[in-house]
Amino acid sequence: MGGDRGPSAVVSGVAAVIAANPDVRVILHGDEAVLRPLLDKKPGLSSMVELRHAPRVVTMEDKPSQVMRHGEGTSMWSCIEAVRSGEAAAAVSCGNTGALMAVSMIRLRRMPGVNRPAIACLWPSRNPGGFNVMLDVGADVKADAPDLLQYALMGASYARNGLGLARPRVGLLNVGTEEHKGRAELKAAHDLIGPATGAGGFDYVGFVEGGDIPSDRVDVIVTDGFTGNIALKTGEGTARFVGDALRAAFNATFLSKIAALLALTSLKRLQTRIDPRRVNGGVFLGLNGTVVKSHGSADAMGVEAAIGLACRLARAGFIERLAARVASAGAAGQDTAGQGEGAAFNS
Amino acid sequence: MGGDRGPSAVVSGVAAVIAANPDVRVILHGDEAVLRPLLDKKPGLSSMVELRHAPRVVTMEDKPSQVMRHGEGTSMWSCIEAVRSGEAAAAVSCGNTGALMAVSMIRLRRMPGVNRPAIACLWPSRNPGGFNVMLDVGADVKADAPDLLQYALMGASYARNGLGLARPRVGLLNVGTEEHKGRAELKAAHDLIGPATGAGGFDYVGFVEGGDIPSDRVDVIVTDGFTGNIALKTGEGTARFVGDALRAAFNATFLSKIAALLALTSLKRLQTRIDPRRVNGGVFLGLNGTVVKSHGSADAMGVEAAIGLACRLARAGFIERLAARVASAGAAGQDTAGQGEGAAFNS
Repeated sequence: MGGDRGPSAVVSGVAAVIAANPDVRVILHGDEAVLRPLLDKKPGLSSMVELRHAPRVVTMEDKPSQVMRHGEGTSMWSCIEAVRSGEAAAAVSCGNTGALMAVSMIRLRRMPGVNRPAIACLWPSRNPGGFNVMLDVGADVKADAPDLLQYALMGASYARNGLGLARPRVGLLNVGTEEHKGRAELKAAHDLIGPATGAGGFDYVGFVEGGDIPSDRVDVIVTDGFTGNIALKTGEGTARFVGDALRAAFNATFLSKIAALLALTSLKRLQTRIDPRRVNGGVFLGLNGTVVKSHGSADAMGVEAAIGLACRLARAGFIERLAARVASAGAAGQDTAGQGEGAAFNS
Repeated sequence: MGGDRGPSAVVSGVAAVIAANPDVRVILHGDEAVLRPLLDKKPGLSSMVELRHAPRVVTMEDKPSQVMRHGEGTSMWSCIEAVRSGEAAAAVSCGNTGALMAVSMIRLRRMPGVNRPAIACLWPSRNPGGFNVMLDVGADVKADAPDLLQYALMGASYARNGLGLARPRVGLLNVGTEEHKGRAELKAAHDLIGPATGAGGFDYVGFVEGGDIPSDRVDVIVTDGFTGNIALKTGEGTARFVGDALRAAFNATFLSKIAALLALTSLKRLQTRIDPRRVNGGVFLGLNGTVVKSHGSADAMGVEAAIGLACRLARAGFIERLAARVASAGAAGQDTAGQGEGAAFNS
């Protein structure tokens, strides 16, 4: 109910997912008076979707702390509750990110061994799979060295299960690749992550810079939620700016308009490659349940992508694998600290 | 001597500047045995350029602290020394950024009233002038609230003198535009910058996000040097990635190659608009002298742009105007703290 484009974009996205995956079932949370007519418009959809009435809505302006205390009865609360009770395998929301994290924290609770949950996003990249993972992109504005180590473990597990990479390469975001550069907590994290590659099942490439985020020298980029959020929005803003400049360049003259027509297929191919809607869905990592945060301004295609991601993760048994990995790394850290050895599960 | 492309790119850039601006004089610092033959290759250049021999070179790997203590005899040291002694109106270097800042700090000293100097860059934007100013992009990995206030003052002065904006709009980079978001030092800076608009001669638009950096709702983006450096390199990396994807899309089929030929002028127009070489040159703000840091990988065109920027600032008497502005804002802060009033110089 709380997305920028309202419930109709969500219902259209749900319809697209179910059309392509008839085995997927959806519980839709929100105002029945609004949602029922939208469902009835799509033939056959009502029978595939369970509607759960929630009278209240979390708005984009609501403070997370308020929603955490008084959020019962909202569609967001009801949605997370369905994951907590085990009725739903994953939650998807286009609403207020801070509030969604707050409600998820208080209802699903942190996974044992995790101090700060994180939000991971997919970033279009030069790697064969087309995407890199970056975290945290906004769950928490702070992260100390042990948090960054957990982000490395969780990000690697997500890359293994979400992108199918056997042994992801992890990099730590900094202002330079030399070991003496950056803030003190980054140097401490650097010293923690290096010895954890055995238990974590990843390779560590050391410090990476902003320019490396879309590169093929790394699969998982680890950073605190303040820096990650700035980088994510800067990247999105730059891509939008270049895209608009490209459009303007093609609209400048008669000849360029003809060229644009001829280039239409090529430009569409480019747009498909860097279209943020295709990779819509930040994943909350470190909670006892899968929560996918769709972009607030997502249209039907964006919602479809976010639900698709939630389905993939649920089918892979991602939460169980992630929990096993965090537990094994924690045990390895206690038993053989600094040695970089430990039991390696297939998580 | 220390740039990635070596002294020949620098000499070519110098030649281009002098060809276009015969009144500009250049003192070139470095190994005479290397530079003299390069100068002699360009007809008439030797008579316009004073060569000052410096036997040593600061490499990209040298630690700033080492260069600060033992840098005498390097081309970088000699270059900054020419500004300190008043022989040169501005310094330009393609070398090691950290070392250049360290040598500049120790030889030129901080401007009275400035705690942390900053590096300001120009960012292609939707504004009529085509560029926004962002600072700090890497002078210091930390900045507290009073530092961020000084960045606002210095960035506004740079936008006035470098971009010709009468009353620049300043924004503070954060993870959201709501007042309750972000880190504690940002909330404190928010409360300091708001009342300083009178003495600083700027408008304050409040918090801005990463996506606003290339936008037209702000002219000057203020942030700490860690975040600014990550954002700058993320933006550059994203633009490069989209450009490469565009090239690949146009090379995909025979038809798309024909379209690319027809679109050549449009694509060149786009490249001109977002070409980082055109806006090459980070400016060190808060020192007793103008220092322009060119990109380490700058080619002749990039070096030409950096020297051109140094000339513009020297001609505008920028350092004197910036010093007057910092002094007046400091005085206003002491006299009428929190009131937002103060003497407004034309700086």
